[in-house]
Amino acid sequence: MPTKILLTKKVSLNKGVLLVGLPGIGLVGKIAVDYLLKELSPLKIAEVYSDSFPPSVHTKGSRVNLIKNELFYLNYKKQEFIFLAGPVQPTLDFKVGSSHEHYEFSETLVNFFKSIGVSEIITLAGINIGEKRLNTKPGVIVAGTDDVIIKKWKDLGAKIDKKEGLISGVAGLLVGLGKLHNMSGACLMGETNAQLIYGDQGSSKRILELLKKRFGFKLNMKKIDKEANDIEKAFNELNQQLEAIEDEGPKDNLPYVRWWMNLFI
Amino acid sequence: MPTKILLTKKVSLNKGVLLVGLPGIGLVGKIAVDYLLKELSPLKIAEVYSDSFPPSVHTKGSRVNLIKNELFYLNYKKQEFIFLAGPVQPTLDFKVGSSHEHYEFSETLVNFFKSIGVSEIITLAGINIGEKRLNTKPGVIVAGTDDVIIKKWKDLGAKIDKKEGLISGVAGLLVGLGKLHNMSGACLMGETNAQLIYGDQGSSKRILELLKKRFGFKLNMKKIDKEANDIEKAFNELNQQLEAIEDEGPKDNLPYVRWWMNLFI
Amino acid sequence: MPTKILLTKKVSLNKGVLLVGLPGIGLVGKIAVDYLLKELSPLKIAEVYSDSFPPSVHTKGSRVNLIKNELFYLNYKKQEFIFLAGPVQPTLDFKVGSSHEHYEFSETLVNFFKSIGVSEIITLAGINIGEKRLNTKPGVIVAGTDDVIIKKWKDLGAKIDKKEGLISGVAGLLVGLGKLHNMSGACLMGETNAQLIYGDQGSSKRILELLKKRFGFKLNMKKIDKEANDIEKAFNELNQQLEAIEDEGPKDNLPYVRWWMNLFI
Amino acid sequence: MPTKILLTKKVSLNKGVLLVGLPGIGLVGKIAVDYLLKELSPLKIAEVYSDSFPPSVHTKGSRVNLIKNELFYLNYKKQEFIFLAGPVQPTLDFKVGSSHEHYEFSETLVNFFKSIGVSEIITLAGINIGEKRLNTKPGVIVAGTDDVIIKKWKDLGAKIDKKEGLISGVAGLLVGLGKLHNMSGACLMGETNAQLIYGDQGSSKRILELLKKRFGFKLNMKKIDKEANDIEKAFNELNQQLEAIEDEGPKDNLPYVRWWMNLFI
Repeated sequence: MPTKILLTKKVSLNKGVLLVGLPGIGLVGKIAVDYLLKELSPLKIAEVYSDSFPPSVHTKGSRVNLIKNELFYLNYKKQEFIFLAGPVQPTLDFKVGSSHEHYEFSETLVNFFKSIGVSEIITLAGINIGEKRLNTKPGVIVAGTDDVIIKKWKDLGAKIDKKEGLISGVAGLLVGLGKLHNMSGACLMGETNAQLIYGDQGSSKRILELLKKRFGFKLNMKKIDKEANDIEKAFNELNQQLEAIEDEGPKDNLPYVRWWMNLFI
Repeated sequence: MPTKILLTKKVSLNKGVLLVGLPGIGLVGKIAVDYLLKELSPLKIAEVYSDSFPPSVHTKGSRVNLIKNELFYLNYKKQEFIFLAGPVQPTLDFKVGSSHEHYEFSETLVNFFKSIGVSEIITLAGINIGEKRLNTKPGVIVAGTDDVIIKKWKDLGAKIDKKEGLISGVAGLLVGLGKLHNMSGACLMGETNAQLIYGDQGSSKRILELLKKRFGFKLNMKKIDKEANDIEKAFNELNQQLEAIEDEGPKDNLPYVRWWMNLFI
Repeated sequence: MPTKILLTKKVSLNKGVLLVGLPGIGLVGKIAVDYLLKELSPLKIAEVYSDSFPPSVHTKGSRVNLIKNELFYLNYKKQEFIFLAGPVQPTLDFKVGSSHEHYEFSETLVNFFKSIGVSEIITLAGINIGEKRLNTKPGVIVAGTDDVIIKKWKDLGAKIDKKEGLISGVAGLLVGLGKLHNMSGACLMGETNAQLIYGDQGSSKRILELLKKRFGFKLNMKKIDKEANDIEKAFNELNQQLEAIEDEGPKDNLPYVRWWMNLFI
Repeated sequence: MPTKILLTKKVSLNKGVLLVGLPGIGLVGKIAVDYLLKELSPLKIAEVYSDSFPPSVHTKGSRVNLIKNELFYLNYKKQEFIFLAGPVQPTLDFKVGSSHEHYEFSETLVNFFKSIGVSEIITLAGINIGEKRLNTKPGVIVAGTDDVIIKKWKDLGAKIDKKEGLISGVAGLLVGLGKLHNMSGACLMGETNAQLIYGDQGSSKRILELLKKRFGFKLNMKKIDKEANDIEKAFNELNQQLEAIEDEGPKDNLPYVRWWMNLFI
């Protein structure tokens, strides 16, 4: 059972846009897409299974289900969208998983998305800026397949990062493999702190604002505004404490988090 | 050599029920199925080999055999059964095995079971409740593919668990993959303590009682009653000692057990 | 490149016997087969390559060669033989290799051996008896596919082991998979100490004596007699020292040896 | 997506020579080939992708690209060349990657090179000589497929190494697999110190000198001469310090470097 897409609703898009938010740093991408799903109520069209997911079933209220991601379809102001959301992507702990799994997973998806008419891939993710996150309103960094798409996001408020870097996992590979198949794409990375393993709503919110600007989504931002404020408040308190104590001990001893394990937190 | 099922006897079932008990937490599922095999003497119909098993042969009395699981057939009071039993399942130590192996193993089996007429999958397993096991008569928690099957087991005495969780390995995947193939199924999890690496007969017994109620199996319970009593007695003594000493040191430093290694204990 | 057998000489045997000696505990099997190769000068008929071997080439005198095992053919007193010899088998360090590799390697070989007329598989190996090796003349333990073959070796002087156990790697799998294909077979295990990473000629010699008895091989045993004597002498000295010191410190802290690394020592 | 070669320019060579320099010990091979690319400006003809590369995209100036190697074509003084260059080869950390990946990667390339008319494979690499590198002008050791090719390089100044050894990764496998396909080949190994993770230009320079002699390449050596001198100067200073201090502490505690991670340094 390599990656399988079980279609429950057949769709064919005209220059469709894909929005992806799977678990990653600060859960930034996952929170953003899950918010869109709640606000926009797109139609579920498929389930995604893969033997690179944990060999476990999920139980909730005694009901058993294989671990899966889901695809949704939305026609919004004449623009067609697919959403890829869910609790899991192949692990980035290479003592546990393998590089092969990521390529197989992403390539199966890219081939499918191309076949149903997706022409642009937008992956949402977090980027770790460490302790700077405590004092900064997070920005959104864009990396894209071509200058046109990069400029488009820059004009909407995203930041350019001139340094070299790597984007690991599905957020990177879907855009990179899409480019090989002549699909334009971008990865929007909300600045966050990798220690925020329960999620950084403040960073996700900034990504949502960019998507609203570009696609005209009407979203009730109340809930995420509140959650983002709670995080900022916590940061402020933390800053005051840090100033008070001036404790110079090691700050970056991250609790090690295996990707899989926090899927259902 | 991916997973292979070598049929020695061809069978075709009418709404057959599969009972699975492979090694896992507290050996609860394995002990229960092995007990059924002894008491009901079903007919051996197949051997199961897999390259996700240890690359070793088993020797006993100088006779060499590949490591294998076995399938058995039973017609009992007009209900047809298949039993899957044996010493091994793909490892859950992901530094050693891979997620892929579990899906391949379970999917090969589910496809086979469907092809011979199995319509319901019941996997027997243990669930770790830690130190609570010392003071409690173990219950059996059910997780199932649908509300009808869950209610059926609940009415027989199984407990519902409302929290979210994961069931790892074959006990979970056979039920989850079976659901994908429209087979109903449930995992019956006997409460146990994961430190009981030589097996928790007390917990297995509770599962057997549920199976007796549902299928009317006539089982001589004498032997497992005695073994279960021995465990409870040991727990009582342990409790008294614990109360006496009130030792507050670390209690959960499990001897690390690689799944494979205790297959033949 | 899964396992590949590159034939340089086509052969077809009549009830051929396979003798296998690849690196393993105490190098017992490898030393025994390599000795047979030197004494009997069989004809090289094939090279064996596999992507489960180290991804390295071997250099000697600046000449580069892929890592490979070799097959040899011998007709000796009307009995036809194949020898499988060489410096490598898939690793048993499962953090590095996988169970799958062993099954693929062994199954490819068994299928090939069957196709050229091998009907009996004899694998030569070592079995760790720890410190007992210091005081004992090593015996040879046999494990076989059926009672006829086990009795044959027992009558020649091999020992039966009634306990349960596992034989890991090619020495076990070739016999076990051969049995699945209706080939009779046995694994002859010379008693040794796993710390003897440079080889236990004393143990190999005992295996050679059994093979001489069964097949009537004429072997000049001078060289291996001397090497075996050197080992026994070293053991005697070690014993005297141990008695003198009565050092009760830990004795079995084996220098950890990754299988691959001592291939060319 | 196993290894894929995406041709952008179709070529067919007459007894072509392949020059390979991918990351490895001291980056010796990579630096040498990258220098040739700058000086000789060959034509890019293909990109090489593989699912054994890190599952990440590379970003630079916000542009996203899959991680890839590249192939170049050059016709120089009637000799046709292919260059294989880039930032990555399958990992030699076997807790992360697998032996299989190396064979798949190298075999796909060898088959391709043969199909376009390459008849000789020259891989450039480093060989660790440890602290001796501090006092020595590095030599170049050759290992080759046959005596003719070894003698050719020896006559040009390369050294022969009579001891047995292993050459791991693509530098070894391309030559070894090429030999299986009747292509002649050699691995030129510049002596270096494995701690030089930012590269040993002094060692690379010696390889370039050999290539200049054999193929008559006109290269402006100014830049690499300077870089090589800087390294020698640093070694001299280090030697003087070592003599002064006579510090006898452990010297070979290498900073552990995962191959992948220093690709873009």
